[in-house]
Amino acid sequence: MRNAPLGFFDSGVGGLTVVRAARTLLPHEDIVYLGDTARVPYGSKSPETIRRFAAEDVQFLLTQGVKAIVVACNTATAHALPMLRETFRVPILGVIEPGVDALLSDGQVDRIGIIATRGTIRSHAYQHALAQRRTGLIIHAKSAPLLAPMIEEDWLDHPATEAALKTYLDPMVDKGLDALLLACTHYPLLIPTLKKFLPADIRLVDSATTCAEHLKQELTRLDLLNPATSPGSLSIHLSDLSEEFEALARRFLDEDPGRIQRAVL
Amino acid sequence: MRNAPLGFFDSGVGGLTVVRAARTLLPHEDIVYLGDTARVPYGSKSPETIRRFAAEDVQFLLTQGVKAIVVACNTATAHALPMLRETFRVPILGVIEPGVDALLSDGQVDRIGIIATRGTIRSHAYQHALAQRRTGLIIHAKSAPLLAPMIEEDWLDHPATEAALKTYLDPMVDKGLDALLLACTHYPLLIPTLKKFLPADIRLVDSATTCAEHLKQELTRLDLLNPATSPGSLSIHLSDLSEEFEALARRFLDEDPGRIQRAVL
Repeated sequence: MRNAPLGFFDSGVGGLTVVRAARTLLPHEDIVYLGDTARVPYGSKSPETIRRFAAEDVQFLLTQGVKAIVVACNTATAHALPMLRETFRVPILGVIEPGVDALLSDGQVDRIGIIATRGTIRSHAYQHALAQRRTGLIIHAKSAPLLAPMIEEDWLDHPATEAALKTYLDPMVDKGLDALLLACTHYPLLIPTLKKFLPADIRLVDSATTCAEHLKQELTRLDLLNPATSPGSLSIHLSDLSEEFEALARRFLDEDPGRIQRAVL
Repeated sequence: MRNAPLGFFDSGVGGLTVVRAARTLLPHEDIVYLGDTARVPYGSKSPETIRRFAAEDVQFLLTQGVKAIVVACNTATAHALPMLRETFRVPILGVIEPGVDALLSDGQVDRIGIIATRGTIRSHAYQHALAQRRTGLIIHAKSAPLLAPMIEEDWLDHPATEAALKTYLDPMVDKGLDALLLACTHYPLLIPTLKKFLPADIRLVDSATTCAEHLKQELTRLDLLNPATSPGSLSIHLSDLSEEFEALARRFLDEDPGRIQRAVL
């Protein structure tokens, strides 16, 4: 079982930022990634539809013999994680709790901004997880539906992206922020831009690094760490294949994704 | 048969701009609209996947007893129309040929810009249809993948949309344009912004009006016009239902969409 691969899924290729962080922290793990590019994005769709798609994604990964699954998508974590954990027996981790725990490990953080898809913000999953852990937090949540398409377009420094960030972030920055939660797996690519845009004392917390750290702890706790000493393999499956998705996968992963396979869901 | 409804489909709600134009020109026709909101957008996906989705969309409309079908989506027209016409016996109209014919009816138009999704531009369907009809045209085609999300966000006058338009259009405007083809059913909502942005002598041609006019001609030619004298009904089906999609439908249609039904594809 410890030799089995880890499964990751996302609506598209954004979740590869989590895979990238996991491959740095857990270099001996084999990884199977599923991106549901035929139906991407999930962030604008209804909770029922997201749950149906997420269950199909998990079923695909189970056919690949995975030992644990990471929901590398904030929207799917927000709407589907409890249902997935009730339905399937394999350990399933999401991206929300690790981000919230990492953020609150700093006792000085009281005023928290959250940017995410419309679906994630609407779910109140982050707001709820934060409020459960600490009272008296001041939380500003803002859906930022154009950021993921802008990142996919590689407009990281484009005036359009700066104008969008201004609309999304200025109101919460003006009220005072200690930290900003980047609650979409696309957003780590925007960190250099955000660092130029935001006051230097605002801490940025992303889903990718925090989730990879949590995954390592959980695999250790469950005695599921791969004992291999050779580099782990990576196998990427997308439900729709195109040159654009392959090029995007390369950017999000920051390494050669190898031969990408077509997944039939 | 003449009393049967017309079927329209699109990847999402953008095709309702075509429905809106058709309801003005053909007020006695009953209309069944399908928006595949569970899998929207099509514009970034592969030709194979778009053809598969489009065939399922047509099959759904056939279960509703339609007498003719309008592919109210440029990407689906570009990639799937020939296959759909070969596969199904019902008359099927697309949005590309009407736009091209309307554009070229003006003999003075030689320098033509096209903006559309990545899928539509990649298909070369517009470039091919134009070149087939007239030689010596100068065609500038540019994929503009962020415009549809910006229109859905209602950022019609937002600085981010202006910055995006500048990137997409300035290079072709600088070279000289007689007309700009708005080759995505979302774009009619952007016409007031484009009129402010572009030199006044550039003619704007959109898919919605031109397609509705072509539809009227074809129904007349095929003797399929509804002889009713009462206002036609409108029935909207979406494969994913949410408050956002219902609000978007209202904006694209510019009338009350009534009770929207969930379509199972």
